[in-house]
Amino acid sequence: MSANTFGELFRVTTFGESHGPALGAIVDGCPPGIPVDEALIQRQLDRRKPGMNRYTTQRREDDAIKILSGVFEGKTTGTPIGLLIENTDQRSKDYSDIKDIFRPGHADYTYAHKYGHRDYRGGGRSSARETAMRVAAGAIAQAWLKEQGISIRGAMVQMGHIRAEKFEWDGVNDNAFFFPDPGKLDALDGLIRDLKKDGDSIGARIRVEAHGLPAGLGEPVFDRLDADLAKALMSINAVKAVDIGDGFAVVEQRGSEHRDEMTPDGFLSNHAGGVLGGISTGQPLIAEIALKPTSSIRIPGQTINDQGERCEVVTKGRHDPCVGIRAVAIAEAMMALVVMDHMLRQRAQNGDVVVSTPTLR
Amino acid sequence: MSANTFGELFRVTTFGESHGPALGAIVDGCPPGIPVDEALIQRQLDRRKPGMNRYTTQRREDDAIKILSGVFEGKTTGTPIGLLIENTDQRSKDYSDIKDIFRPGHADYTYAHKYGHRDYRGGGRSSARETAMRVAAGAIAQAWLKEQGISIRGAMVQMGHIRAEKFEWDGVNDNAFFFPDPGKLDALDGLIRDLKKDGDSIGARIRVEAHGLPAGLGEPVFDRLDADLAKALMSINAVKAVDIGDGFAVVEQRGSEHRDEMTPDGFLSNHAGGVLGGISTGQPLIAEIALKPTSSIRIPGQTINDQGERCEVVTKGRHDPCVGIRAVAIAEAMMALVVMDHMLRQRAQNGDVVVSTPTLR
Amino acid sequence: MSANTFGELFRVTTFGESHGPALGAIVDGCPPGIPVDEALIQRQLDRRKPGMNRYTTQRREDDAIKILSGVFEGKTTGTPIGLLIENTDQRSKDYSDIKDIFRPGHADYTYAHKYGHRDYRGGGRSSARETAMRVAAGAIAQAWLKEQGISIRGAMVQMGHIRAEKFEWDGVNDNAFFFPDPGKLDALDGLIRDLKKDGDSIGARIRVEAHGLPAGLGEPVFDRLDADLAKALMSINAVKAVDIGDGFAVVEQRGSEHRDEMTPDGFLSNHAGGVLGGISTGQPLIAEIALKPTSSIRIPGQTINDQGERCEVVTKGRHDPCVGIRAVAIAEAMMALVVMDHMLRQRAQNGDVVVSTPTLR
Amino acid sequence: MSANTFGELFRVTTFGESHGPALGAIVDGCPPGIPVDEALIQRQLDRRKPGMNRYTTQRREDDAIKILSGVFEGKTTGTPIGLLIENTDQRSKDYSDIKDIFRPGHADYTYAHKYGHRDYRGGGRSSARETAMRVAAGAIAQAWLKEQGISIRGAMVQMGHIRAEKFEWDGVNDNAFFFPDPGKLDALDGLIRDLKKDGDSIGARIRVEAHGLPAGLGEPVFDRLDADLAKALMSINAVKAVDIGDGFAVVEQRGSEHRDEMTPDGFLSNHAGGVLGGISTGQPLIAEIALKPTSSIRIPGQTINDQGERCEVVTKGRHDPCVGIRAVAIAEAMMALVVMDHMLRQRAQNGDVVVSTPTLR
Repeated sequence: MSANTFGELFRVTTFGESHGPALGAIVDGCPPGIPVDEALIQRQLDRRKPGMNRYTTQRREDDAIKILSGVFEGKTTGTPIGLLIENTDQRSKDYSDIKDIFRPGHADYTYAHKYGHRDYRGGGRSSARETAMRVAAGAIAQAWLKEQGISIRGAMVQMGHIRAEKFEWDGVNDNAFFFPDPGKLDALDGLIRDLKKDGDSIGARIRVEAHGLPAGLGEPVFDRLDADLAKALMSINAVKAVDIGDGFAVVEQRGSEHRDEMTPDGFLSNHAGGVLGGISTGQPLIAEIALKPTSSIRIPGQTINDQGERCEVVTKGRHDPCVGIRAVAIAEAMMALVVMDHMLRQRAQNGDVVVSTPTLR
Repeated sequence: MSANTFGELFRVTTFGESHGPALGAIVDGCPPGIPVDEALIQRQLDRRKPGMNRYTTQRREDDAIKILSGVFEGKTTGTPIGLLIENTDQRSKDYSDIKDIFRPGHADYTYAHKYGHRDYRGGGRSSARETAMRVAAGAIAQAWLKEQGISIRGAMVQMGHIRAEKFEWDGVNDNAFFFPDPGKLDALDGLIRDLKKDGDSIGARIRVEAHGLPAGLGEPVFDRLDADLAKALMSINAVKAVDIGDGFAVVEQRGSEHRDEMTPDGFLSNHAGGVLGGISTGQPLIAEIALKPTSSIRIPGQTINDQGERCEVVTKGRHDPCVGIRAVAIAEAMMALVVMDHMLRQRAQNGDVVVSTPTLR
Repeated sequence: MSANTFGELFRVTTFGESHGPALGAIVDGCPPGIPVDEALIQRQLDRRKPGMNRYTTQRREDDAIKILSGVFEGKTTGTPIGLLIENTDQRSKDYSDIKDIFRPGHADYTYAHKYGHRDYRGGGRSSARETAMRVAAGAIAQAWLKEQGISIRGAMVQMGHIRAEKFEWDGVNDNAFFFPDPGKLDALDGLIRDLKKDGDSIGARIRVEAHGLPAGLGEPVFDRLDADLAKALMSINAVKAVDIGDGFAVVEQRGSEHRDEMTPDGFLSNHAGGVLGGISTGQPLIAEIALKPTSSIRIPGQTINDQGERCEVVTKGRHDPCVGIRAVAIAEAMMALVVMDHMLRQRAQNGDVVVSTPTLR
Repeated sequence: MSANTFGELFRVTTFGESHGPALGAIVDGCPPGIPVDEALIQRQLDRRKPGMNRYTTQRREDDAIKILSGVFEGKTTGTPIGLLIENTDQRSKDYSDIKDIFRPGHADYTYAHKYGHRDYRGGGRSSARETAMRVAAGAIAQAWLKEQGISIRGAMVQMGHIRAEKFEWDGVNDNAFFFPDPGKLDALDGLIRDLKKDGDSIGARIRVEAHGLPAGLGEPVFDRLDADLAKALMSINAVKAVDIGDGFAVVEQRGSEHRDEMTPDGFLSNHAGGVLGGISTGQPLIAEIALKPTSSIRIPGQTINDQGERCEVVTKGRHDPCVGIRAVAIAEAMMALVVMDHMLRQRAQNGDVVVSTPTLR
C-alpha cells in the first residue's frame, strides 16, 4: 500500500500541496451504477470549506470539484474516478518570514527530517487542505452507503472546556460549530472571540456515528472495523486520540456494567459503540476523536531555525482558532470510507451473507 | 492486504484458534543477519503467558515456540520465518453449556453473524490466545530495533480507579501487574481479590513507549506513524481507545500550552508524544490504550440464544479478572511491529536519510 | 504485499526451506463453508510428489499435509487456514561438496547476492520444494471453484522436440508424463533414458486451462486476468515464458484471422484464450508456459566459487531430468489461485453481477 | 491493491477514459531529490504519441503533460506526484454506429459483462490511450534509474513475418518502426501499405532490455523480478505472450546448453535473460512480448449486438494497422516501473547491500 492511498477495496489515493496548482484524487474500486455528480460532492466539500463563517480561517478557497473520469451519464462506471480541485488562492508570500524557521508543534520540522528538504510555501502536503480530497471521496462513499440504508453523521461535542450536554442532532448543521447543544452556542462564540484576541487556539472533541450497519462487518484479527476506523480517524491532521464506544471510560468500568446485554428485542445498551471482537454488532457505530489546538498562533514561541540556532516564531497567516470545527465533515468522510470498504470486503468473502438477524430487532 | 496480516514491509500473518491443534505465524520481509533464536522469542511470550501468577487465568499453556524456517545458524536469512506453538491444553468441554448462547459483550455474536456458523470451542479466532503470535513476531522486531538503538517498554498505568502516580520503570517487570508505582501494588491486589469474589472484571489503561527513534518515520497522509500505531493498538482484543501523547487532554489545551517549543538543546516538552504531522520527531513515541473489562464473568446476565430466545448466561471458564495485565507485552509487540515497519519504509524511500539532527539533542 | 504472499482477496502466504524442519502456508480470505479436509489436499500434493515414478527425482518426501486451523467439522470457517508439511528426508550431506561453489544456471548465485549469505543445504527457499504449498493452497481453491462450476486442468504438451499432436485429456493423469498424446509416450520414455545416461536435462511446455468461467473476471488496467495469470505462472520455478491463447503466434497473424467472431450461438474461435481487454470472455481460459531444463546436471561446467575463483562443478544430488513433469500440478494450482481471487474481487465490486449472458450460448 | 495501481513501493495509480475530459496519474513513493520536469516526461510521451508518422493512427493528441504536485523547484519532494493530460480531440461521433454492437476481438464485450453497462465513446478505459500515463510515470522512474546507472531500451523486432536479423540499437529511435534492422525498413513500409489497403492489421514482437542492474533484485517466491515483469508487460493492451531470456526456446534446450557458465571474468552467455531464481544476476534483463493485431479493422466480421442478435461489424475509426509500433515506449516504461520498484524493495529489506561482486566483472 502506498502512503497516500486509503482502503483495501474502495481505495482513495490523493495528491496535492496547499500552495501548488491543484489537489486531486483517484477513487478506485467503486461499484458501477451509483448516482454521483459534482453537485453531490460539492455539498460535502462546502461543509469543511474555510471562509464559510467568521469562526474559521478567512482564506477563500472555491474548492470547485471536477470529475474527470469514472462517471458517465450521471452514474459511476466501475472504472477509476478522477477528481480535481484547482487551487485559486495560493498566497504563499504570507509564509516567507518563516521560511527558515521550524514552528513548534508544526510538521515542518518532521517533514524536513523525513524528506531532506523544506517546502516553505505553507505546509505543502502537511496542510489540512489535503483533507478536501478525503471529503470528496467520502461523499461518493456516502452516496453508495445511502443506497444500502446506512447513514453517517458527526458533530463537535466539546471545544476547550465547553462540552455538549444535549444531543440535538437535527440542528447540528445549522450552526457554525456543528454543535448539538444550542444552549452552548453563545459560550462557544465567546471562546472563539477570546482566542482571536489572544492570538491563541483551542482543542476540540468530535463525535461521528454510522447508523444502519449490518452485523458482520470487520476483518479480524488485524483489519477489525474499529482498528481500521482508529487508523482512518487518527490519520486526520491534528487528531491525537480515538475512543470507540465508551472509549477511555472503560478503564474504570466493571464487566457487569460494560457488557451490553441482549434480549429478543435487541441490545439493552451500547457501551461497545457497535463493535465486538472487531466486528459490527448492527448497533450504531460510535467514535470520538480529540483534535489538538493548532500550533499556528500569534503568541511568540521559542524555536530553532534550520541551522539549529535559537530564534522566536510568530505565525501570521490566516488560521483557524479551532481546527476541530472543520474536522466534522472530514471525520464523517473517513468513517464512510471505512464502512464502505468493509461492506465490500464482507461481500467478497461472504457473498450476500450480510443480513440482519430476524430474531434481533 | 489480508485480514490476518499486519505491516507493509515487515509483515506478520497469523493463524490459529484457541482450541485447535496449533497457532502459527509467518514473518515476511525480515532483513537477513538478525540474531534470533527460540529462547529470545520465548522470553517475550512468557511475559503474556497465562498462569504466570495468581492474578491471571489459571489455564496452563506452555506456549513453546518453534522456529520452522527463515533462521539458519542463529541468524535470520531474509526468507520468511515460520513460527509454531502447539496447543497442549485445549479443554473445550468448559464451553459446552454456552454452545448455543451468545455471551453479552463477547465476539461470539458478531462472529456468528459474519461467518454464518458458530465455533463454540471457546472463542476460536476471537480468543486472546491469538495474540501469542503477535508477541512472538514482536520479539523478532525488537531484536532488530535493539540493533538500531531503539527500545520499547510498556506498563499498566491504571486498573479501575487505581492510577499510577509514580513512574518507576525499572521495577515494572518485577511485579505481576507490570505496574510502575510500587505503592499501589497492595491496592491492586485487593481489587483483584474483590473481583474474584464478585465474579466480576475490570478495565485497565496501558502505556507503551519507544525510545531512540530517529526523526522522519511515518508516511503521510494516510500511513502516518500515529495512525498506523492507533490501528495496531486498537486491533488488540478488548482495546477501546488510543491516546497519542497527551491524547484526549488536548481538547482542553490551548495552542500556546500544547506546542512543544524547541531550543538548540532539544524540545522543551513532549505533549505531542513524539509525532508531528504523522512523522516522528525523534522524541519518545508515547501511546496509551484502554482495555475494557472482560465480558467473561460469573455474574448472570440477560442474553439470547442462537434461536433468538431470551436466556441467562454465566461464564464458568477460567478467565482473567483484568485482561489488561497480559496486554502489556502485546502492546509492546504491536508498537515494535509498527516502528520496524516504518524504519524499513523510510529506508526504501529515502535510503539512509534517517539521521538524527546534530543541532537537536 | 510481501514477497511470499500471493493474491489479493484469496491470499496464500508460504514459508519453508527444502532442508529445514517443515514447510507451511496460511490461506487467508477463504469463504466459510467449503468442504475441505486433508485427504482432498493430499490428492493434489501426490500429483507433484517426487519419487512417484522413475522419471522424476528419487528423493522420497511423504508430503503429509496437516490442517492446523480454519477448518472445523469438515468445512472452512472463514478464518485463516494453517497448513503444515514436516520434512522427513532432509539429506543435506549430498550438497556439502558444492557448499562454496555457485552452480551455473542455479539460484544460489543470486540468493547469495541478495541476502549476503549462503544456505548451502540444497536450495533452501529457491528449491522447487516450496511449490508443495502452492499445490496445497490450490487444492482449496479448486474445491471452491468446483462448487461454482469451474474446473482446471493441465498437461505437459511438449518435452524437448517431442510435441503432443493429439489432446486426449481423459488419459493425461494416467501416464507419468501428464501427456495428452499417448502415441508419444514411448518417445518420451526414450528421451528420459538418454538424458539420464548423459546426465543432462531438458525443457518442457505445459498447458493449463480453466473451464466454466463467467464473463467479467479481471480488473483492468493493471490487475487484468491475463496479467495476474502471467505473474502466477512466471513465479513457478524454472518458468521462462507465458502464452495466453495463441501467444507468440499472434505476431504473424492478421486481425481478420485473430479476432474471435461471435454469433448468437457463441464465439466461433478462441484465439484470445478466453481473455479480451484483460477480462474473461466466458470461453476457456488457456495458457501455456515454458520450463527450462534444470541446471542440476552431472555434466561438468565452468563456474566460480564464492571467492570468485575459477572452478568446475558437477551436481550429484538426485534431480529430475525434466522438472516440467512435476510442474503440471503446480501450474493448475496457480491458475486456480488466480481465478478464485478474481471471482472474489468481482463479487466485491459488482456483487453477484457475475452472470452468463442469456443471449450467448 | 487496486486494479488501477501498479507497484509496491513505487506506485502508479491511473485514471481516465479515451473520450473523457482528461487522463491522470498519481505516482506515490518516489524518493525526493530526483530532477523531474514536464519536458522530461513529454519526451517519452512523444515516442508513443499517435499521429507522429504515417504508420500510426491519424488521431491528433497533444498529450501535453502537466505536473500538479510532488515536484518543487525542479526536484521531486517525496510527496505524491499528480500528473494530468487533458483530452483535446475527443471525436466520439466516429463510434456511434457501433454503439450497440460488440466488436469481435475487442474489450467492449467483456467490459459490458463486467460492469453491466456500455461506454460506447470509443473504448473508454480499455483504450490504449490509458497507456500514456504509464509512459509518463515510466519517465520519472527512468530519471531515477539513470542516476543509479541503469538504462532501459526497447525495439520492435518483428512485425508479421518480417523479423530483425541485425540489432543496431543506435538507430532504433531514428525510424518510425523503432526497428533495429535498417535493411528491413522498406519491407515494413510495404507491409503497412498492404494492410491499409486491405483494411487489416498485423501483430508484432517487442524486445525490452535493462542494463546496469545490480545482482540481487527480485523478491521470491512470488514477487520474483521476472514474475513482476511478466505481469507488467502482459498488462499492456494487446499483449498475449511474454518471454524472459530465451523464453519458449528453452523447451527444446538441454541443461548443458541452457545454463550460463561463469568465469572470474563474468558470465559466458545470457540464456537466462538476467534472472535466476527470480533474482537479477547483474547481466542485462531481457524480455520479449507479442502484441496481437488490433481488432479494429475495416474488414467486415460476424458478431452480435447487445440484444444477442446476429449482425455484421466494420470499424471505421482511425486506428493503427500495427499497435505494436507504439508499444515500444510503453514496454520500456513498464520495465522501468518494475526495476525501480524492486530497487526500492531491495533497499528496504537489505539496506545498501545492493552491490556488484568485485570478483565478477
